[in-house]
Amino acid sequence: MSGCFELSKTSETSRARLGVVHTAHGDLLTPFFMPIATKGAVKTLSTADIEKLGSPILLSNTYHLFLRPGVDVLEQFGGLHKFMSWDRAILTDSGGYQVFSLGAMRKITEDGVTFASHIDGSRHELTPEKSIQIQQAIGSDIVMVLDECTPAGSSFEYLEDSVSRTTRWAARCKQEFAQGRGASNNPGALLFGINQGGTNQDLRLRHASELSKIGFDGYAIGGLSVGEPFDQASAVVSALDGALPQDAPRYFMGGAQPDEIVEYVKRGVDMFDCVLPTRNARHGLLYRFVHDDVSKPDFFESLHITNEQYKYSKEPLVLPQDGGAIAQELSRYSLGYVRHLFTVQEVLGQRLVTLANLRFYLRLMADIRSAISNGKL
Amino acid sequence: MSGCFELSKTSETSRARLGVVHTAHGDLLTPFFMPIATKGAVKTLSTADIEKLGSPILLSNTYHLFLRPGVDVLEQFGGLHKFMSWDRAILTDSGGYQVFSLGAMRKITEDGVTFASHIDGSRHELTPEKSIQIQQAIGSDIVMVLDECTPAGSSFEYLEDSVSRTTRWAARCKQEFAQGRGASNNPGALLFGINQGGTNQDLRLRHASELSKIGFDGYAIGGLSVGEPFDQASAVVSALDGALPQDAPRYFMGGAQPDEIVEYVKRGVDMFDCVLPTRNARHGLLYRFVHDDVSKPDFFESLHITNEQYKYSKEPLVLPQDGGAIAQELSRYSLGYVRHLFTVQEVLGQRLVTLANLRFYLRLMADIRSAISNGKL
Repeated sequence: MSGCFELSKTSETSRARLGVVHTAHGDLLTPFFMPIATKGAVKTLSTADIEKLGSPILLSNTYHLFLRPGVDVLEQFGGLHKFMSWDRAILTDSGGYQVFSLGAMRKITEDGVTFASHIDGSRHELTPEKSIQIQQAIGSDIVMVLDECTPAGSSFEYLEDSVSRTTRWAARCKQEFAQGRGASNNPGALLFGINQGGTNQDLRLRHASELSKIGFDGYAIGGLSVGEPFDQASAVVSALDGALPQDAPRYFMGGAQPDEIVEYVKRGVDMFDCVLPTRNARHGLLYRFVHDDVSKPDFFESLHITNEQYKYSKEPLVLPQDGGAIAQELSRYSLGYVRHLFTVQEVLGQRLVTLANLRFYLRLMADIRSAISNGKL
Repeated sequence: MSGCFELSKTSETSRARLGVVHTAHGDLLTPFFMPIATKGAVKTLSTADIEKLGSPILLSNTYHLFLRPGVDVLEQFGGLHKFMSWDRAILTDSGGYQVFSLGAMRKITEDGVTFASHIDGSRHELTPEKSIQIQQAIGSDIVMVLDECTPAGSSFEYLEDSVSRTTRWAARCKQEFAQGRGASNNPGALLFGINQGGTNQDLRLRHASELSKIGFDGYAIGGLSVGEPFDQASAVVSALDGALPQDAPRYFMGGAQPDEIVEYVKRGVDMFDCVLPTRNARHGLLYRFVHDDVSKPDFFESLHITNEQYKYSKEPLVLPQDGGAIAQELSRYSLGYVRHLFTVQEVLGQRLVTLANLRFYLRLMADIRSAISNGKL
């Protein structure tokens, strides 16, 4: 659709790809990972922190921003970039995932979905058009279409109906996106479609073909991080590799452990978001590399820093040679000190492990790119 | 006692003084203010943050560190400096204030005070000797004697008894301090006495004389931030100016608003700790300068950032010219954005206002020193 993606290499031993996504706020080397700034901030971190971590992009959530601060505030500031003082790229979801998570508090029709706010119960409607309008007010660089993320275990009939509606919604999104471009806080934004269909490969492929016909800047794979086993999810991703356009970026939506990210990259995925490094950090789970070769198994470990065994540990939270200014800064704090911070409930502990885990995921992606480049993945 | 203090100027228009306290971890220009790192961290901030704020000293609480991480951990690390990776000065309180705050959970005898931990109810004894031993394990640069902080409104009989005991405890502390110096994690530490006596000036002066006879590196004024009106507290401070040695630093213990700090400085006080900039920050109260001349009234304002009026405000949290790298960093965030962070309960809001308020208090002290130097205070 837009030529936003340049593919520079496809691995000879897997479907792993190297490339670059051009956005209105900078180039993104693929494969990449997006830290999650749900409500306009990565939990415990500032905009300056995310810059220092070296991430060229972050993800924010339309549903949350719509409720607070609200579209009027975002319009007043000229979009989320200015509101949070971030001049790199932003991807926003459509708001659909959160709305569908509300369960009994929402109702789906052909037009869209009505829901009650989790904050005050106030009623709102989210249509494909409205989702695009909100994301254009946010000034997102990568706008996602409104889709229904079907729950794991949905019946075939439900899936088929839902996927057809998601296709019709995708077409409406594309039309609204083009019409609203002039009034957008980011006229250079990209629009991504979202593939659904549960773990049914026929439906997945049919839907991929329908979305490709409509034509998007990139394609997300949704609904694969909602409880199904990894082997089913990865089989779907493998099947989609041949069905999605090769010249557009593919984005795996939802949580993935470090070794799963490597597996999805080997199946042709270019983009990831993942709440694990940040959410786990707040519970004291620290990711670390065991060795440098991400193409080999067991390249990482995760440890519970609150464990008694770290009480006297002078081992640094992060090795200074682990990369960049952040690793240098974090290396001065010992596991024993950070454990103490968790024990006495000082939020600094959550912040330090959040920084360490995001550094881990960002280095993982850099190591993956090197491994593809060197023919090792 | 030690010659740790050099007085370089006494104002001609007030009792304000300029000087320097020499510690084993650096020189401290007086008057100065100490950020409070209760449990080995200033809430929401890292050691690197306090360095960046430019504070040459922090205060930590013996009672909390004694319970967690505990003396065994601090011994293992070689003291709090190494544990939290801080190589500037540390002052610790004696633990008495927190223990006496436990109310019914503690019991005072001539020997010391027994108390039940607020965490698990376990019983402990804090004697003058034990308080010094813990502070020497912490490796504090400025060690405080164990005193009883008498509640506002105590009877004369109670005050007199308590002050006599505090004097006897102070003498025991001095003896223990000298004996334990060899085993201390900081053999170059200073020892400060604490003046008590409520708002009774006779008792205060008598106690000051007793403490001076014992002889300490510095003298704190305790028990004046526990509910009595400012005019009574400041009258006591004025009276003590003549009774405490001129060649030792004086430390006002406990909370003081910015304008009260200026008044205490004019009455001869050199050192302050104060929980207000950090505790108030966590409730969204932001301190700002209204004008540059701290010798004139109303030089500051405090605003509630959660107020509706800041919803659309693009005004920076801190003006970039307000001083140092931190002001530069904070100036990129608007009041509207920080208000949003409080509204959605992102801890980043607390962190940003904590940084802003500490910067305010530290600049206040620098401005006070300039004003004394220029003959304006």
